[in-house]
Amino acid sequence: MQAKAVFYHAGCAVCVEAERAITTALDPARYDVEVVHLGTAKARVHEAERPGVKSVPALMLDGIPLHINFGASLDALR
Amino acid sequence: MQAKAVFYHAGCAVCVEAERAITTALDPARYDVEVVHLGTAKARVHEAERPGVKSVPALMLDGIPLHINFGASLDALR
Repeated sequence: MQAKAVFYHAGCAVCVEAERAITTALDPARYDVEVVHLGTAKARVHEAERPGVKSVPALMLDGIPLHINFGASLDALR
Repeated sequence: MQAKAVFYHAGCAVCVEAERAITTALDPARYDVEVVHLGTAKARVHEAERPGVKSVPALMLDGIPLHINFGASLDALR
């Protein structure tokens, strides 16, 4: 049974490198990874904020928001 | 062939939660994960800094330093 992991990013170089490293490293038997570009999918900023995402790139993993490096505050994406 | 991933932390609550989430989510077929407590293994701070780790918790993955959330600056661990 796969759990869902969501990687939120905004298309910047920091995000893209983190995305490649993290999303390919997760156990594919356990995680179904969705990648969401909040710069273009602005309607989903709210969905990211609800469980605690404060900046991108971030990975929601088992309900825990993991902020990876620091690209951009969500405030910059509204 | 497993690649080595190193998770550096300093024992704080932020680190421990991030460690549990990340280290158990990586693909065990591809990564051999080592966990290093820099608060007790101060001699390894230099090893972490060399490839670009600036704060803990951090994960070195395929040579890329991924800073996860923000726990403590390495300067606090010298």
